[in-house]
Amino acid sequence: MSFDLELIRAAHERIRPFIKRTPVLTSDALDQECGTRLFFKCENLQAAGAFKSRGACNAVFSLTDAEAATGVVTHSSGNHAAALARAAQLRGITAHIVMPANAPQSKVQNVGHYGGWITFCEATLAAREAACSRVSAQTGATIVHPFDDLRVAAGQGTAAIEFLEDAPDLDFILCPVGGGGLLCGTAVAAKALHPGIKVIGVEPALADDVAQSFRAGRRISIPTPLTIADGLRTNCTGEKNFPIIQRYVDDIVTVSEEGIVAAMRELWERLRVVIEPSAAVAYAAIREGRVSVAGKRVGLILTGGNVDMEQLPWLKK
Amino acid sequence: MSFDLELIRAAHERIRPFIKRTPVLTSDALDQECGTRLFFKCENLQAAGAFKSRGACNAVFSLTDAEAATGVVTHSSGNHAAALARAAQLRGITAHIVMPANAPQSKVQNVGHYGGWITFCEATLAAREAACSRVSAQTGATIVHPFDDLRVAAGQGTAAIEFLEDAPDLDFILCPVGGGGLLCGTAVAAKALHPGIKVIGVEPALADDVAQSFRAGRRISIPTPLTIADGLRTNCTGEKNFPIIQRYVDDIVTVSEEGIVAAMRELWERLRVVIEPSAAVAYAAIREGRVSVAGKRVGLILTGGNVDMEQLPWLKK
Repeated sequence: MSFDLELIRAAHERIRPFIKRTPVLTSDALDQECGTRLFFKCENLQAAGAFKSRGACNAVFSLTDAEAATGVVTHSSGNHAAALARAAQLRGITAHIVMPANAPQSKVQNVGHYGGWITFCEATLAAREAACSRVSAQTGATIVHPFDDLRVAAGQGTAAIEFLEDAPDLDFILCPVGGGGLLCGTAVAAKALHPGIKVIGVEPALADDVAQSFRAGRRISIPTPLTIADGLRTNCTGEKNFPIIQRYVDDIVTVSEEGIVAAMRELWERLRVVIEPSAAVAYAAIREGRVSVAGKRVGLILTGGNVDMEQLPWLKK
Repeated sequence: MSFDLELIRAAHERIRPFIKRTPVLTSDALDQECGTRLFFKCENLQAAGAFKSRGACNAVFSLTDAEAATGVVTHSSGNHAAALARAAQLRGITAHIVMPANAPQSKVQNVGHYGGWITFCEATLAAREAACSRVSAQTGATIVHPFDDLRVAAGQGTAAIEFLEDAPDLDFILCPVGGGGLLCGTAVAAKALHPGIKVIGVEPALADDVAQSFRAGRRISIPTPLTIADGLRTNCTGEKNFPIIQRYVDDIVTVSEEGIVAAMRELWERLRVVIEPSAAVAYAAIREGRVSVAGKRVGLILTGGNVDMEQLPWLKK
């Protein structure tokens, strides 16, 4: 399968009935302060509260009827899990979700809300992968990896198509990086539609596996990172993702934990949207001066908005 | 001046370059729970964070050049103050804002941000009105009342025009009521565009002056209310507003303080937008069953999103 704009356009046609066209927001006040023009693509307002609905829907609705009949399975405790359960529910098939036994109750409920079948396992990557393979072997369910799957990455790239329709002539797109699925899809779509654009991945400095890999020219694995940006706590980017990132992405920059919390709070207050910490990293990169964007038109993807309202990071002692 | 759809349409043309076309959001999950279809018009995402920018811009850009030359003045410590300062800045004229000396620092800063000239006074309505008249007499500034001004109410009504374009066939519009400017504009626009629609005003039970007035058939004044919905702490609806409300509004319902906080939190969590307490009253009316909307298409206006992120009401002891 050739990973190109046509694939992403086909994904867009496929998933259109099942996702939202999310708005692009701007703020004159933030623009004045930053000395640049910022455009925020609000995937926190996407169905199930994250861009993950795009990739999950594309994977689920790409299945043949025979494949679909035996369902899908993934291991995730986060937004991909809820998005996959939702997509499966929309197609009327079973989603098996492998979650660590210590997953927060709210995440378990989210998956349950969409009718996902939950299998608990130990909280290690090895245990999660083993449980996922076992469920797949027992049920025939198709594994839908959260990021190392080109159907998923193509679905994620559909946000960039909409973004460039609604905010043309962007000079930059800044994109949070966890496993790299969104970054791949975004880079391929954006560069095809607008070859002069720069696509920058942003990672927490505490979870800089992709930044390290990008500089080293090979996939580097790190211990499970402890960043507050829980959606970006990946050890290593995907095998399928990495060559695409190497080819299409201009740079990967990193931001501090304090910067993530400050950026999150500032966007709640000034842009008036609820975003999760992972979604704040791109704006944190602007605030921390990690990208030279003075006078430019800069697109930022706000990736998700699933937050525990009792646990706001700027209110913690 | 006849207060009709044409006046509101003219306001819309006048203010279009200075306001945002705010999105209408929906949530399948909330719809399922409520047994109805909800459409949220996000005026919290409006310039300066509230629908007040519409009325303020209409008032300021309706002035003749001679009137504009001497500026505008209002007394308000809330969203109207910031919106009027912003509108005046856009026209390049002076906005005098009379604020009580005990106004929160964040509100003072908001007005200062848009270049408003602040006059402090005692924290009583009489002192505020006296200071406002004095500034007007000394400077020639035109008084722009927060709600009892038909240019302001016409500007506020422009949100309903957009709402019915983006969410046609609404059976209801639920609208928070403070002084009644937004409710007037909304009711007149909505009934003209879609005669079968029901327009319902929603007030905190602690600030039910308009509900009382509506039932009594005359304007009733109440002591300054202590509701958490600080944007709705008005003593009495406007002289100009009340006959319009009597003629065009179908009902005024009230909601509890607990209901406002619960509704606010639920919309932050589930709709993923930052709204202030005043903006939550319409959804609180749905949650508390104050309006019979089962199976209907219901529009709710989320009026503003200016919140102190250190003081979230569900986290108070």
